[in-house]
Amino acid sequence: LFLRHSTVSSLGERALIARITSRLATPPWVAVGPGDDAAVIKPVRGAFDVLTTDALVDGIHFDLRFTPPDAVGHRALAVNLSDLAAMGAEPRAALLSLVLPDELDVGTLDGIVDGVLTLAARYRVALVGGNITRTTGPLTIDVTATGSVRPRRVLTRAGARPGDEVYVTGTLGSAATGLESLKAGGATDASLGASIERYLRPEPRVRAGTLLGRNRAASSCMDLSDGLGDAVRQLAEASGVGITVNAADLPIADAVRAWHLGSGRDVTATAISAGDDYELLFTSRPAQRGRLRSVRRYVGDLPITRIGVVTKARDVLLQDEHGTRDLPGGYEHWDRSFRL
Amino acid sequence: LFLRHSTVSSLGERALIARITSRLATPPWVAVGPGDDAAVIKPVRGAFDVLTTDALVDGIHFDLRFTPPDAVGHRALAVNLSDLAAMGAEPRAALLSLVLPDELDVGTLDGIVDGVLTLAARYRVALVGGNITRTTGPLTIDVTATGSVRPRRVLTRAGARPGDEVYVTGTLGSAATGLESLKAGGATDASLGASIERYLRPEPRVRAGTLLGRNRAASSCMDLSDGLGDAVRQLAEASGVGITVNAADLPIADAVRAWHLGSGRDVTATAISAGDDYELLFTSRPAQRGRLRSVRRYVGDLPITRIGVVTKARDVLLQDEHGTRDLPGGYEHWDRSFRL
Repeated sequence: LFLRHSTVSSLGERALIARITSRLATPPWVAVGPGDDAAVIKPVRGAFDVLTTDALVDGIHFDLRFTPPDAVGHRALAVNLSDLAAMGAEPRAALLSLVLPDELDVGTLDGIVDGVLTLAARYRVALVGGNITRTTGPLTIDVTATGSVRPRRVLTRAGARPGDEVYVTGTLGSAATGLESLKAGGATDASLGASIERYLRPEPRVRAGTLLGRNRAASSCMDLSDGLGDAVRQLAEASGVGITVNAADLPIADAVRAWHLGSGRDVTATAISAGDDYELLFTSRPAQRGRLRSVRRYVGDLPITRIGVVTKARDVLLQDEHGTRDLPGGYEHWDRSFRL
Repeated sequence: LFLRHSTVSSLGERALIARITSRLATPPWVAVGPGDDAAVIKPVRGAFDVLTTDALVDGIHFDLRFTPPDAVGHRALAVNLSDLAAMGAEPRAALLSLVLPDELDVGTLDGIVDGVLTLAARYRVALVGGNITRTTGPLTIDVTATGSVRPRRVLTRAGARPGDEVYVTGTLGSAATGLESLKAGGATDASLGASIERYLRPEPRVRAGTLLGRNRAASSCMDLSDGLGDAVRQLAEASGVGITVNAADLPIADAVRAWHLGSGRDVTATAISAGDDYELLFTSRPAQRGRLRSVRRYVGDLPITRIGVVTKARDVLLQDEHGTRDLPGGYEHWDRSFRL
């Protein structure tokens, strides 16, 4: 504990590794865990392996000046679990690649590891290995997550068909509003506490994703990491269809509406273009409504809201009281990151 | 092609992704490849999954000033394939996480991708996904590789027993000598060309590793990324044994000996402490000699050299004409990187 104010470079390799690996539990399906050249995992019989990786960079995807270290760790794992959820996969294991500036405080590193491990424990994800290296640049955390899904339960972006209905989990714009509030010095309005938490510690929709896959209640699915507009556009393109979103149906938290009203800004624009809401966007055929009802019963109080329809014409549109126009957002986001 | 002198930030997201994904082939065991939230892979029936990740940072693990871009890409994948080989695993798929400075030249990125894909093709590794993001720091490449290994063929660091013999593949100190020569302005002596190549484009010992596992010819194995001294120490510790290395037996290329003789330096010290030789260190029981002979027959002209013995006393020693002393190297390498 007296080391918390040392830097990672002064602590040295062995102590740094021990500080992390001493906190890891190895479940029985991990044949070889941390400490060897690679991790060895027993696969789920009859299932496919699902793999994803996402890097977060200090100053780009988060900012240590106003993000607690545990939230950085939480988010680094959460964005990957969100990707697995979007495929209908159960998460199983993660690798943690830490790229650290010499002067990083050991206490900050401890906090980051706290955040990763707390979220990992909640979803029974085993941290099975990883890598630590130094950099002359900003702190970068690259998590790889792996999970399993039964062959016929895989959700992809490509299955939407004209006539399907378009749904989204949770609420939109909360994380972005939380971030704004944080940057403005924290939750002056207590009602924004939930939005700040949504930004800091997004809850990956693992349960919703796996239920949608298991019940075969969705025809396509993806997560919202870069905003609704971006996701709708990508899902439509992958499926070769169009989508019309109804502005009046977008699920927006009351506190987020109030914050926008107070600052005279357009809450619909935020709900569509803001990133960091790790919700699921999915489509469901009218014939799947019964299945979707049973998913709703099992996701607890997570809202699942119908926001639009899939069309044959390939346009991606927003319908509101003024008529119909191109859905904003989703062209380029070099300022953030994007998947291969 | 006329874009080769643009920067990655000016090229934009879609063009950048297309530049990479248009070059990818998707083998039949990849159920979902690039372009979705995560990759989906059909596992090898009856095999375990093996997972590893390694990040390389410009200025720490390579230097774009004297490393061709394709060598950077080659190395980023090779270090991970080397980790899989050390477990006895066949490589199958990789994820590529690119963390790019805005001003990076598109031609440099193309070269890096060339290097990754050329090596991937040689080992039939499918690039199934990844992530691209910007950074305010140096170029960082984080590759995650996955492979498969039959349960009883897993090689770990922990199986060495007193009386086992210690072996190493290839030659030692070549990569470090190649790097020195590169830094000094290139191969003034043509005989160092092979060493430079060993530094730039190390060959992961996939065939040797999988043969050792399949033939059950090794009792323990790891790769040499941070030098022989480090590896011997870690393998001995993981196995709860000691190891005595015989200096006279270390396999050192003639050109490397000549270069050290010319500069009046100790070639044995380089062979023990220098990193970047992605060779395998393994132990083999005397009863496994027959199996090791058949491995030798199938690895072609890759040398496999006996360099020492495993002892009950837990000391890690170097024996030379002056007697026996602690094997140097392997305490701390915060200047490079290390595994969880």
